[in-house]
Amino acid sequence: MRRRIFETEHEDFRDAVAEFVSRQVTPNIEAWAEAKGLPREFWLQAGQQGLLGLEVPEEFGGGYPQDYRFNAVVFEELARASFAISSCVGIDADIVPPYIVDLGTPEQHARWLPGVAEGSTVTAIAMTEPSGGSDLANLKTTAVRDGDEWIVNGSKTFITNGYSADLVVVAARTSPEKKAKGITLFGVETGMAGFERGRKLDKVGQPESDTAELFFTDVRVPAENIIGQVDTGFIQMMKNLPQERLGAAVYGLAHARQILDETIGYAKERKAFGQSIGAFQHNKFLLAELVTKVEVTQAFLDDAIMAHTAGELSAVDAAKAKYWASDVQNEVIDHCVQLYGGYGYMNEYRVARAWKDARVNKIWAGSNEIMKELIGRDLGL
Amino acid sequence: MRRRIFETEHEDFRDAVAEFVSRQVTPNIEAWAEAKGLPREFWLQAGQQGLLGLEVPEEFGGGYPQDYRFNAVVFEELARASFAISSCVGIDADIVPPYIVDLGTPEQHARWLPGVAEGSTVTAIAMTEPSGGSDLANLKTTAVRDGDEWIVNGSKTFITNGYSADLVVVAARTSPEKKAKGITLFGVETGMAGFERGRKLDKVGQPESDTAELFFTDVRVPAENIIGQVDTGFIQMMKNLPQERLGAAVYGLAHARQILDETIGYAKERKAFGQSIGAFQHNKFLLAELVTKVEVTQAFLDDAIMAHTAGELSAVDAAKAKYWASDVQNEVIDHCVQLYGGYGYMNEYRVARAWKDARVNKIWAGSNEIMKELIGRDLGL
Amino acid sequence: MRRRIFETEHEDFRDAVAEFVSRQVTPNIEAWAEAKGLPREFWLQAGQQGLLGLEVPEEFGGGYPQDYRFNAVVFEELARASFAISSCVGIDADIVPPYIVDLGTPEQHARWLPGVAEGSTVTAIAMTEPSGGSDLANLKTTAVRDGDEWIVNGSKTFITNGYSADLVVVAARTSPEKKAKGITLFGVETGMAGFERGRKLDKVGQPESDTAELFFTDVRVPAENIIGQVDTGFIQMMKNLPQERLGAAVYGLAHARQILDETIGYAKERKAFGQSIGAFQHNKFLLAELVTKVEVTQAFLDDAIMAHTAGELSAVDAAKAKYWASDVQNEVIDHCVQLYGGYGYMNEYRVARAWKDARVNKIWAGSNEIMKELIGRDLGL
Amino acid sequence: MRRRIFETEHEDFRDAVAEFVSRQVTPNIEAWAEAKGLPREFWLQAGQQGLLGLEVPEEFGGGYPQDYRFNAVVFEELARASFAISSCVGIDADIVPPYIVDLGTPEQHARWLPGVAEGSTVTAIAMTEPSGGSDLANLKTTAVRDGDEWIVNGSKTFITNGYSADLVVVAARTSPEKKAKGITLFGVETGMAGFERGRKLDKVGQPESDTAELFFTDVRVPAENIIGQVDTGFIQMMKNLPQERLGAAVYGLAHARQILDETIGYAKERKAFGQSIGAFQHNKFLLAELVTKVEVTQAFLDDAIMAHTAGELSAVDAAKAKYWASDVQNEVIDHCVQLYGGYGYMNEYRVARAWKDARVNKIWAGSNEIMKELIGRDLGL
Ligand SMILES: Cc1cc2nc3c(=O)[nH]c(=O)nc-3n(C[C@H](O)[C@H](O)[C@H](O)COP(=O)(O)OP(=O)(O)OC[C@H]3O[C@@H](n4cnc5c(N)ncnc54)[C@H](O)[C@@H]3O)c2cc1C
Ligand SMILES: Cc1cc2nc3c(=O)[nH]c(=O)nc-3n(C[C@H](O)[C@H](O)[C@H](O)COP(=O)(O)OP(=O)(O)OC[C@H]3O[C@@H](n4cnc5c(N)ncnc54)[C@H](O)[C@@H]3O)c2cc1C
Ligand SMILES: Cc1cc2nc3c(=O)[nH]c(=O)nc-3n(C[C@H](O)[C@H](O)[C@H](O)COP(=O)(O)OP(=O)(O)OC[C@H]3O[C@@H](n4cnc5c(N)ncnc54)[C@H](O)[C@@H]3O)c2cc1C
Ligand SMILES: Cc1cc2nc3c(=O)[nH]c(=O)nc-3n(C[C@H](O)[C@H](O)[C@H](O)COP(=O)(O)OP(=O)(O)OC[C@H]3O[C@@H](n4cnc5c(N)ncnc54)[C@H](O)[C@@H]3O)c2cc1C
Repeated sequence: MRRRIFETEHEDFRDAVAEFVSRQVTPNIEAWAEAKGLPREFWLQAGQQGLLGLEVPEEFGGGYPQDYRFNAVVFEELARASFAISSCVGIDADIVPPYIVDLGTPEQHARWLPGVAEGSTVTAIAMTEPSGGSDLANLKTTAVRDGDEWIVNGSKTFITNGYSADLVVVAARTSPEKKAKGITLFGVETGMAGFERGRKLDKVGQPESDTAELFFTDVRVPAENIIGQVDTGFIQMMKNLPQERLGAAVYGLAHARQILDETIGYAKERKAFGQSIGAFQHNKFLLAELVTKVEVTQAFLDDAIMAHTAGELSAVDAAKAKYWASDVQNEVIDHCVQLYGGYGYMNEYRVARAWKDARVNKIWAGSNEIMKELIGRDLGL
Repeated sequence: MRRRIFETEHEDFRDAVAEFVSRQVTPNIEAWAEAKGLPREFWLQAGQQGLLGLEVPEEFGGGYPQDYRFNAVVFEELARASFAISSCVGIDADIVPPYIVDLGTPEQHARWLPGVAEGSTVTAIAMTEPSGGSDLANLKTTAVRDGDEWIVNGSKTFITNGYSADLVVVAARTSPEKKAKGITLFGVETGMAGFERGRKLDKVGQPESDTAELFFTDVRVPAENIIGQVDTGFIQMMKNLPQERLGAAVYGLAHARQILDETIGYAKERKAFGQSIGAFQHNKFLLAELVTKVEVTQAFLDDAIMAHTAGELSAVDAAKAKYWASDVQNEVIDHCVQLYGGYGYMNEYRVARAWKDARVNKIWAGSNEIMKELIGRDLGL
Repeated sequence: MRRRIFETEHEDFRDAVAEFVSRQVTPNIEAWAEAKGLPREFWLQAGQQGLLGLEVPEEFGGGYPQDYRFNAVVFEELARASFAISSCVGIDADIVPPYIVDLGTPEQHARWLPGVAEGSTVTAIAMTEPSGGSDLANLKTTAVRDGDEWIVNGSKTFITNGYSADLVVVAARTSPEKKAKGITLFGVETGMAGFERGRKLDKVGQPESDTAELFFTDVRVPAENIIGQVDTGFIQMMKNLPQERLGAAVYGLAHARQILDETIGYAKERKAFGQSIGAFQHNKFLLAELVTKVEVTQAFLDDAIMAHTAGELSAVDAAKAKYWASDVQNEVIDHCVQLYGGYGYMNEYRVARAWKDARVNKIWAGSNEIMKELIGRDLGL
Repeated sequence: MRRRIFETEHEDFRDAVAEFVSRQVTPNIEAWAEAKGLPREFWLQAGQQGLLGLEVPEEFGGGYPQDYRFNAVVFEELARASFAISSCVGIDADIVPPYIVDLGTPEQHARWLPGVAEGSTVTAIAMTEPSGGSDLANLKTTAVRDGDEWIVNGSKTFITNGYSADLVVVAARTSPEKKAKGITLFGVETGMAGFERGRKLDKVGQPESDTAELFFTDVRVPAENIIGQVDTGFIQMMKNLPQERLGAAVYGLAHARQILDETIGYAKERKAFGQSIGAFQHNKFLLAELVTKVEVTQAFLDDAIMAHTAGELSAVDAAKAKYWASDVQNEVIDHCVQLYGGYGYMNEYRVARAWKDARVNKIWAGSNEIMKELIGRDLGL
């Protein structure tokens, strides 16, 4: 069915993003994958194109439409080219800025937001630790007050943009005895003494994104880098995670749609036993099911996008969107691989990469099991 | 997520229908199930309530809002009480009237529509034959012209309302050599000589609906009972089937929603091993998945309802809605049965009946396999 | 693949059972279904045929081959005709006798076993109560010692053969404070004062089996009717449940095999669009999958049958067999229904009844969820 | 359940293979993966260990037990360490030798078999072409007789061991008009003029195996390198494919078993929310299901192994084994990835590699769709 949530302004924006992607992104993916990360140039161009400032108020260089449909457009168009890049941009432009905008001081706004919007300040958010990502309230990195500074010790892992980020929002324990209520967010910046990064992690997929382990050894973070109130970090993360999850759902589905479209094309052209492989009823029915599943999911996500645009998206609906869409994404692309036969197992084929890229979407941003916990709890179970 | 397609007028109508259902339907289901059919009284009350005239122009006693949301409301509220009744009303009020309204002569309008709207003329539509339902174009019942009359011979089976209907729209072959292009629709009425009915079919579920085999032996149908042009019946059925399929989707999902709600309640109350069975994580996650699946499906159906209200629903989107929603309905209810344990296997429990009632939704109105054929063809496969 | 576990003696026995079934069972199923239970005549004939004495030592009239393959043969051949009857015979001949044989006194052996073997004493076992079946250790029916008698109070539900049984093994609490270690088995017999039965329960399927609620009001059971030691009933049930579960798996799969065979036949004969419906690739692949699933499952069950014959079947392997086979049974038959189209929803078709009959196999004999608990625990989780 | 097919001699052999694997294989996998292929040294050691001569008669240096259980042991033990290596050895030792042994001339036996058994002659088989693998009968590589030589032209792709093989069995068309009946097998050897190889293909997984495209430009193959009769190649491949498919099933399942075992260990140790993640009921049930699925599948494969040992395995049963086991393998490992959380997406974790390695097993050796075609046809559909 025709999607009904976009107005002319979104469609115009989509055209612009699509053009940017085909001009600046697609031709370079190969090289960035080999380099295992996005170059600064990409970020600056994306900034110039207005992709990084959607969550940044105009006075700091952003567009700030306060209309999540624009964010969705960015995600969708990027994900058609590269799932990894949509997720890197997601962290940088969609997930980190709201923390600064909503919780930051005017001084922090002025210091950080212009760079975020223009792409000169790449950001990351570091919650997960080697000992656990799901049980966020139990994190072990500590920050201890020492005069006007806080001394941060610990490590984080699996941090998207972690290797290249200039500014990392780090969740650390400030009140040991208070569990969820003893966590604070710190803006840790490149160059702070004691802040080191491991090598880029060798992932199953998404080579064009850098993911890293971060180490904090007596890093002295000035108090003015605290984001929000001391000991309120957990609640802030809970408040912001829905947007992260909706994003993951949106670009996950867009990714699957694109690969599915390409696969349908392949299934029409590839011949076996004298007919196109898509004409075999088993494959025809399969493709009919996948297309249906994708469109059904889109309808739900579109509702969620509208709800979020209206400021009404609940955490539990974001959880539904995230788990459902990432499952669909993976299921669809797995079938697409099969339809490509042996080529589906060759990295030079987009479908093969997509398959590897997609898998993590069921794990990160709160694993799908954690999503079901949230939904189940919401049912009163 | 909150559904966004209904306005105040629909919600008011929903309240009225819900009240009607709880007053006139729910208390009688047991008796109607035992009687294996709905009494005339039901039809008259439903007519009075305005449930049967949504597709009938005002001049003939209908409401005719030309807004499919009202139809959806009727289906949803009936299905919460009884899936069977929603399907009977579907045939009578949602499927048959458009044939008469769109194709009928002014004389037919005047003759039939008032009775349809008030419930005094119960209707059915007879396409399927013992030798096949999927391959409609291949039907074998014949109608041969004889002066001002047509002589109909053959039989039909699985006809909803077939035992009690006053007026049956019968698809018959008028041009033997022309396959799909040789089928015509006839209004066959109770009392015509040679028109007989078999006993009420003994179905797996839905005892409160009558389903019957119909026999036509030299039935002389006057030419003025032809609905639409001779030899155009197939195309008319194709044109009207999307509404039938959307209806099946809508009441199928409403049925599942209701049973799921009741099951969640049961899972909270039923105890095992010292806790409610819904608190076991396996069940909690399962219910989280089912609720998500239902809501995702609702979003798609709501889009389809709006598209149909705008006159834009394509046959292929109706096919998607029908197969997907009926699958979801059955999957959801099957899990609900399991959660009820042994009680789920006892007919006195609503969940048990729902399970039996739901199964046919994957078969009728075009089997789900036929739906996938349509979708696959639309993809160019 | 050819099954490899049966020797000539089993095959001969199979032929005899098959002949008995086709002569004495198949022609009567309809009538027994209408009567909602098996007549005494059936039991006596089955006894005469040697079907009821496989677990009864020869001195008491049984065959007692101590080779579970014979039991499997009985189940398989009965289930091909009627899933319900295989389950009734299962309770009577396969589940209850071992309690008496293994735990009973010589006097009980002499009193009860001959009747069991000849079919004049029909048996049942009553564990489940209205308040719960999964949490067996928590049962509420009490038995309090009073001299040489025990006074039993409480109720049981969902008891197979419960309406017609002459002898019911009843699990009752004898030590309130000792949970699982305070349960004792009693042989309660027809005619004992205060032992009453509710009506035959109205089930989704299996009408030819009677299932009933049992009520015990100050029933005085003589001490010599205690089966096994006081307070050891729970451990005995745990010891005997594996055989019950293996049985449920064996006849569940045999049931599915039979229906699947019939469906393949139907799919070859039924035509649509000018070809047999089984020739459509979607259906062909589906049937290929179902046949494979059935054969894969058979291989596992055959291993389990051999293990049990050797006295080596673990409780956890029985749990695997039960949950897996009952899932396969239901999945297979559900697809078979679909392949029959509208006929699959008509009770006169065997596939329709099979579908209703099969559903309970995932619930009883320990629900599939309880099976997974056992398996999971065995993994050390 | 305990597997029952192995005798002491197989278990002793298993111990020896296991030791070889842990000594010579496991420590080197990393390096071989980086080198994108197995070194000659590996082959020679494997030959010395007796792994490569199971299909080679003793007079040519093989073991030739004519007992497929030994082959199964080799596969299982290799697959526990590396799915890729089991597949490379499969081609070299299990798939190619039977062609030579069964069809070859005494001269070919003497020329090739000793090298195969000792690992000095690595082999490959080249059926698939860029234009299609499923429709084997339609292959396009040609061989035209020219005196005592045949001139081969065309290309093959996805050839396992293709980059390193000394001897490649190449299927080529010798009678253009005869489709399946016009294909002949040629032994093409390294060094023949006009025989070239593309680079090692960049696969999704299995880096330690080399897979290559092969090009034949006027390659003059002497007539004495024809394997079997001219124009009978297709039937020979059909005859030998069941063994290939059984092998794929056997090492696929062994692979999944191993990863599942490791995952259960991980699930016991990894903590979240104060308990091991395997203790959450959802995960516990999931692992219970996966273990069951693996054991059920093993039972079927063990039957198939015994049937094949007895020379009775049908092509259709091999097809069932292959599609079913590869599906199970992939499903199991996918869930294992999920249980590892973020680590499941890191290449340094075995589970991550296993996930990538496994995917192709549903595609090669005849895709699972082709397997279902075969099974469906065998059902008469
Ligand atoms: C490529 C990549 C990029 C990432 N980017 C970031 C980033 O930018 N910032 C950041 O902070 N993190 C990031 N993450 C981390 C990610 O959010 C975590 O991996 C995820 O939250 C899971 O945590 P974990 O890996 O520690 O798994 P664990 O928490 O150890 O979980 C292991 C398994 O147990 C399950 N489990 C846990 N609790 C329960 C429960 N109660 N019931 C049932 N099952 C349960 C999980 O679902 C999972 O299957 C990234 C991860 C990856 C792989
Ligand atoms: C309770 C009930 C009420 C009904 N009410 C009505 C009614 O009011 N009016 C009316 O006209 N009909 C009615 N029907 C009939 C219903 O529409 C048909 O049963 C349905 O269309 C299927 O036709 P069939 O039963 O002849 O199955 P068949 O057409 O024989 O199909 C058998 C199987 O083959 C499959 N199949 C068929 N073609 C293909 C293909 N090309 N590819 C793959 N698979 C295929 C089908 O999906 C099905 O699984 C009703 C049926 C029931 C059970
Ligand atoms: C036709 C029929 C015949 C029967 N015959 C007999 C008989 O002859 N004798 C006899 O004693 N009983 C008999 N039973 C009863 C049967 O064994 C029980 O119905 C069954 O054990 C489930 O118990 P329940 O119905 O009380 O469900 P409950 O125990 O209330 O369970 C409800 C749901 O909760 C789930 N659940 C329970 N515990 C857990 C857990 N820890 N984790 C996750 N989920 C859980 C269950 O799986 C089920 O889905 C019969 C039942 C039927 C329907
Ligand atoms: C890593 C790897 C190693 C390999 N090793 C070897 C080797 O050593 N030697 C060798 O000869 N080959 C080898 N192969 C090739 C492999 O056997 C083929 O890839 C496989 O047979 C499928 O052929 P294809 O890739 O051309 O797909 P296609 O034949 O183009 O098939 C594409 C899709 O269409 C489906 N399809 C085809 N026909 C039908 C039908 N009738 N009905 C429904 N669906 C259909 C297929 O299942 C598949 O999903 C290897 C492949 C890989 C990836």
